[in-house]
Amino acid sequence: MIHEFRSMVAACCVALFGLSCLHGTGGETGMAGALPPSAVTRCLPQQQPLPPSGEGMWPWTSLAGLDEDALRARGLQVALADLWTPGEGGLLQAVAGLEGCSASLVSPDGLMLTNHHCVYTALQRNSSPGNDLIRNGFAAGDRSEELDGKGIRAHVFRRHTDVTQRVLDAVPAGVSDLERTLLIEKAEKAIVAECEAAPHSRCSVYAYNDGLSYVLLETTELTDVRLVVAPPAGLADFGGETDNWHWPRHGTDFALVRAYAAPDGTPAAYSPDNVPYHPPVSLTISMDGVRPGQLVMVAGTPGRTRRYLTSAEVEDGLNWYYPVRARLFEEWIGILRQTCTDVPESCLATAATVKSLNNALTNARGTIAGLARSGVLERKRREEAAWRSWVAETPDRQAQYGRTLDELIAFVISSRAGRDRDLLLGYALWGSHGLRAAWTITKWAREQALPDADREPGYQERDRDRIEADLKAVQGSIHPEADRRVLAMFLARLGELPSAEHIPQLDEALHGDYSAAAIERYLDDLYAHTTLFDLEQRIARFHESIDLLRSSDDAFIRLVLAMTPAIEASREARKARIGALSRLRPPYIESLIAMRGERFYPDANGTPRVTFGTVAGYAPRDGVWYTPFTSLQGLVAKHTGKAPFDAPDDVLAAAARVSSRYRTDTAAGVPLCFLSNCDTTGGNSGSPALDGQGRLVGLNFDRVYENIVGDYGYDPVLSRNIMVDVRAILWYLDEVVHARAILSELGMSPGSVLEGTARQGNW
Amino acid sequence: MIHEFRSMVAACCVALFGLSCLHGTGGETGMAGALPPSAVTRCLPQQQPLPPSGEGMWPWTSLAGLDEDALRARGLQVALADLWTPGEGGLLQAVAGLEGCSASLVSPDGLMLTNHHCVYTALQRNSSPGNDLIRNGFAAGDRSEELDGKGIRAHVFRRHTDVTQRVLDAVPAGVSDLERTLLIEKAEKAIVAECEAAPHSRCSVYAYNDGLSYVLLETTELTDVRLVVAPPAGLADFGGETDNWHWPRHGTDFALVRAYAAPDGTPAAYSPDNVPYHPPVSLTISMDGVRPGQLVMVAGTPGRTRRYLTSAEVEDGLNWYYPVRARLFEEWIGILRQTCTDVPESCLATAATVKSLNNALTNARGTIAGLARSGVLERKRREEAAWRSWVAETPDRQAQYGRTLDELIAFVISSRAGRDRDLLLGYALWGSHGLRAAWTITKWAREQALPDADREPGYQERDRDRIEADLKAVQGSIHPEADRRVLAMFLARLGELPSAEHIPQLDEALHGDYSAAAIERYLDDLYAHTTLFDLEQRIARFHESIDLLRSSDDAFIRLVLAMTPAIEASREARKARIGALSRLRPPYIESLIAMRGERFYPDANGTPRVTFGTVAGYAPRDGVWYTPFTSLQGLVAKHTGKAPFDAPDDVLAAAARVSSRYRTDTAAGVPLCFLSNCDTTGGNSGSPALDGQGRLVGLNFDRVYENIVGDYGYDPVLSRNIMVDVRAILWYLDEVVHARAILSELGMSPGSVLEGTARQGNW
Repeated sequence: MIHEFRSMVAACCVALFGLSCLHGTGGETGMAGALPPSAVTRCLPQQQPLPPSGEGMWPWTSLAGLDEDALRARGLQVALADLWTPGEGGLLQAVAGLEGCSASLVSPDGLMLTNHHCVYTALQRNSSPGNDLIRNGFAAGDRSEELDGKGIRAHVFRRHTDVTQRVLDAVPAGVSDLERTLLIEKAEKAIVAECEAAPHSRCSVYAYNDGLSYVLLETTELTDVRLVVAPPAGLADFGGETDNWHWPRHGTDFALVRAYAAPDGTPAAYSPDNVPYHPPVSLTISMDGVRPGQLVMVAGTPGRTRRYLTSAEVEDGLNWYYPVRARLFEEWIGILRQTCTDVPESCLATAATVKSLNNALTNARGTIAGLARSGVLERKRREEAAWRSWVAETPDRQAQYGRTLDELIAFVISSRAGRDRDLLLGYALWGSHGLRAAWTITKWAREQALPDADREPGYQERDRDRIEADLKAVQGSIHPEADRRVLAMFLARLGELPSAEHIPQLDEALHGDYSAAAIERYLDDLYAHTTLFDLEQRIARFHESIDLLRSSDDAFIRLVLAMTPAIEASREARKARIGALSRLRPPYIESLIAMRGERFYPDANGTPRVTFGTVAGYAPRDGVWYTPFTSLQGLVAKHTGKAPFDAPDDVLAAAARVSSRYRTDTAAGVPLCFLSNCDTTGGNSGSPALDGQGRLVGLNFDRVYENIVGDYGYDPVLSRNIMVDVRAILWYLDEVVHARAILSELGMSPGSVLEGTARQGNW
Repeated sequence: MIHEFRSMVAACCVALFGLSCLHGTGGETGMAGALPPSAVTRCLPQQQPLPPSGEGMWPWTSLAGLDEDALRARGLQVALADLWTPGEGGLLQAVAGLEGCSASLVSPDGLMLTNHHCVYTALQRNSSPGNDLIRNGFAAGDRSEELDGKGIRAHVFRRHTDVTQRVLDAVPAGVSDLERTLLIEKAEKAIVAECEAAPHSRCSVYAYNDGLSYVLLETTELTDVRLVVAPPAGLADFGGETDNWHWPRHGTDFALVRAYAAPDGTPAAYSPDNVPYHPPVSLTISMDGVRPGQLVMVAGTPGRTRRYLTSAEVEDGLNWYYPVRARLFEEWIGILRQTCTDVPESCLATAATVKSLNNALTNARGTIAGLARSGVLERKRREEAAWRSWVAETPDRQAQYGRTLDELIAFVISSRAGRDRDLLLGYALWGSHGLRAAWTITKWAREQALPDADREPGYQERDRDRIEADLKAVQGSIHPEADRRVLAMFLARLGELPSAEHIPQLDEALHGDYSAAAIERYLDDLYAHTTLFDLEQRIARFHESIDLLRSSDDAFIRLVLAMTPAIEASREARKARIGALSRLRPPYIESLIAMRGERFYPDANGTPRVTFGTVAGYAPRDGVWYTPFTSLQGLVAKHTGKAPFDAPDDVLAAAARVSSRYRTDTAAGVPLCFLSNCDTTGGNSGSPALDGQGRLVGLNFDRVYENIVGDYGYDPVLSRNIMVDVRAILWYLDEVVHARAILSELGMSPGSVLEGTARQGNW
């Protein structure tokens, strides 16, 4: 579900490092290619031929380099140039970014389709104890009833510009790795500032392969995005955590939102006077669906893959990063669940966090299982041996690349020091709303004291509105008792670190005593002397100068100011790592490209991509074949009346009707979800799935469990993404909530049950 | 696994009622036909056509009535008359009964193939703390090393004779229902005695449909059956309780035993002088295997189905029988597991009981789930309404059948009184070895005092050897501490019954105090004053007269003698129920046959049957298709090194070899298990699966979870049985244990790895 959200680490690094997480955040790119077919692959029944590979998350700007004839042979009917032509745009212009998710414009009046889990926070923020929109769902009767998205921002992509030379020219030889990052950031800030001088532009510079190239991405930012339709979680998230990341799936994880603009058509903040936004392009919806074996494309903004890692980095993932995160998330979830039991008022506030953590936990476990099963580490070592042989073949290669891999691996190993502390610190500053607010406020105030161009990326004037909006919007997610229990866990864990890794200011605050009793005493004091959990007080602090804050008697502000040297040291170390990798990784990637001589796609980095796959089932294990479609009848069969298999009554009543225009023989009745081998990852949530004609047929929302490890390499046998069939969405709009105006806007003729082309079925 | 054993109730009723459990044990036959395709059925992918139905467990004597042309069209190549011709025999003569299981003769020297779980007790009885044959497996180096089966008995079928008229003639009109049963028993005893006057004969009379007909079955009983090969449980029972009753499956649940006879070829008890038994017919093994869509036959002795129940009886199953059993077994298993933790010496003794109880527990749960899912109760009610309409159509029908259903249902409802106590009493007398031995010994002694022809069936001279052998053989399953804890549970449960259902003699023994402390005090005394857990003492008591036993100071003997009036009253009530059903059910079944006008097969009753099915996968739920073959590679992928997924090292080493003559493209490598839609139930364990030519290609050992409810009705979509592929057995014999002599005896040329026809594969 949340699955195709970008990961918690991304959120975390915003809090701690103020970096745009769409930048290469270091440490995790490397050796290329598809995973070896695992042991399971041999279980593929003979009668099920492997579909053409869907590998590759292709930048829109690279489509001209693809083999169009081969794609046409697979069923592509629209010209690649019509999908996207640099400088001109194309059909993909209807695909937008949506805060860690993707979305698509599906009407000339700014209606956008995305996942339910991508607007989960907005639903939470619009809920009240008397009306829980997550539980009850929501459908605006008309446009006047559409609800303020409270933080939903959409980015419509306009232009990509290669700025590699300009960025690299800003970095003289011989500077330190930290200096290198700071100089790159400075160059990027200048480029972004120029770009945003044009009205209504929002720009970012993205590093590809840790700095082999840099691209400026120019977007139109839409900040008035309103909730139009969201099904109840009982349908959108049917199966809950049990089914999350798994096939077969029976949820309809969708929501409709609408972008608004000022009356003159330009982007604007929320205002009752705004009017629907008219996008340059919107997608056509197809009722035809797709069948097994047909081509399907998924377009969106995948966040992060790790296809080109070194063996040392895979080792870090397998033996440290994922196991450490899994243990942390387990404890954290346990604390929030216990708090929800003890203090029921906390449940609504912490629901979204529990959902995120659960999602990340399953991801971590799936990655560990997948890495172990696929033998990625052994394969990396074999590939690196092959690379060494290739380099040894000519003196030129030896001269050019001979040391690249050794240097990269040596650096990775050397940079392991302090990683446990840095990870805990990062999550603590995100996980405790007290720490998070105090950090954001004091960091903002410190940067405010500097000229805008000299401030850290993420803390410039251009970021002010977003930061203030976040400080406000987070109110619905705050519960002091839950916050306190989570912070207690982090303090205890920080206290368990070797003393050399302790944070001196915490040792001081706790007098070196990290016992449960001492922590409780300290937290009594901390939470008794803060006003940061109060919305107005928090915003008031945000407007204070750093000098005023330094004299504050707010306990969280005082604690964070005391810890600032340690936090900034950790952040600088990280920037130094990023700088080192931007020096060491690109030549190695260059050698890989030279060695393979194949078409190359860069790791996902949050920039717009498209993947070309085929509708196909798969064999998760010996004796089992997952068929590529599920149906409404399957949902009814799984319904138990107990969460997470508790479908709403109106859905069950509609499902019990004999006839529906949305029935098909692809599934056994009304189709719900389907599988393809498109190459996706977190950030692809909400991505439209298009048929060969470029018509919208589905909505990406997850990957299968066996494909969680796909971030480390594409597996033709097991890499499968999960989409909602658009006919399930239309069925819900038509036969459950009778949203005739919306259906008309989507180009559909509603009312099938009463007057439509219904076929008689045999339920 | 134990799955296709006949149920615990069968074992239980031997202990309590002394009846041959192969008789109709009453109360559970009724309304006919296949289950309605459940909700899941619609998930069948379009590309997977439903195979021809495998419904029907056909008595061997009824084959002439089948549509041979239709079977030929499905792939039958052997003539039905060659399978079995009444009075002559046929290929099926190679299929034998094996104490609640089935088996087949596979060599002219008496080698028999059956399931590992069918010889589990024999393996346990041949184990010692230093050599656990269940864990380690066993393979005799030559015939001299074959181990005494200690209780394994095989029955080779010779002749069926319809004795309906003779039995019914023995019952005058107007007798009581109890008298009716006793008169039927008397007639059966006389028929059996005549039959067994022929040398080496073992005979039984079986009731079909509770007494619509009676058939005398004449067999050759082989009592010297020795263990030849049994794989370690890590292979035979790979997946353990987790995989039990489920697909996909990766165990090779097989064992080879050998029947011996006296030097003159006649059956004889175990003796070192015995020689291999030469059967009239033995099966040929095929290396060709079968493919999806091919015909396969399963022949054996299915124990009990309930296809023709009334709605009142289905209600009893759904609301009482299975839920009550499930709760009892859960507690019982928990007690034995706890005892195994507290007193590790008890583990080996209780292993087989825990296995049986687990198996029965999963069966109960699966039946409850299946009954609920399939809506069997609602369907029965609809069918009964249709039956009433049919009867109302003509005055003749009204006269002949008008009251049959009402009378049957009224009787079923009236006979619910006391059922909780009777069920507990039955299980207590089986579950406590103290009670079990005391009951067997005193009942035997009481019956001994009567002329042989007047004794109860099961306690005649012809039963003496079996009873004494059981009293001996059970020694390896006895652990007094485990026994005591189980008995404590039964006493507590009997104490919880409404006081009207209490057993007066127990109330007296416990002074009406069923508190835990009082039960413990009572058991202190009981277990301190018995010698029945000692083998020699127990056998000595078996040889004592009832008068001597009445003066015994053994506490268990005294308790059981005191309880005897209550036990016999319960047994008489049961016999009266059986009598009533033998009066009420047959006319109703007759009406069903008349109404349907279809070919009719009687419910399974322990007699030899054959079913004609097709190798086929199935859709257990929406989005999932189970493919019909598993492979050795699938086992390797599931191996974790931790039970129950802990394959033996030699198996893993052999599986890692690149080439094997047993590889096939049906599975992905060496096939392990496969599915068909043959119609099977408990008692079919160990049944051979034959191809269209009548060659042995597999070994039935289980059903799938969705088919546990198949006892109540065949479902063309979900009724699937699980077989070991014979090539997995040959692979194990050849490439793991190198049993060359056995392979030669099976008609195979061994040694493929070293010198054979190995194909190169791509593991």
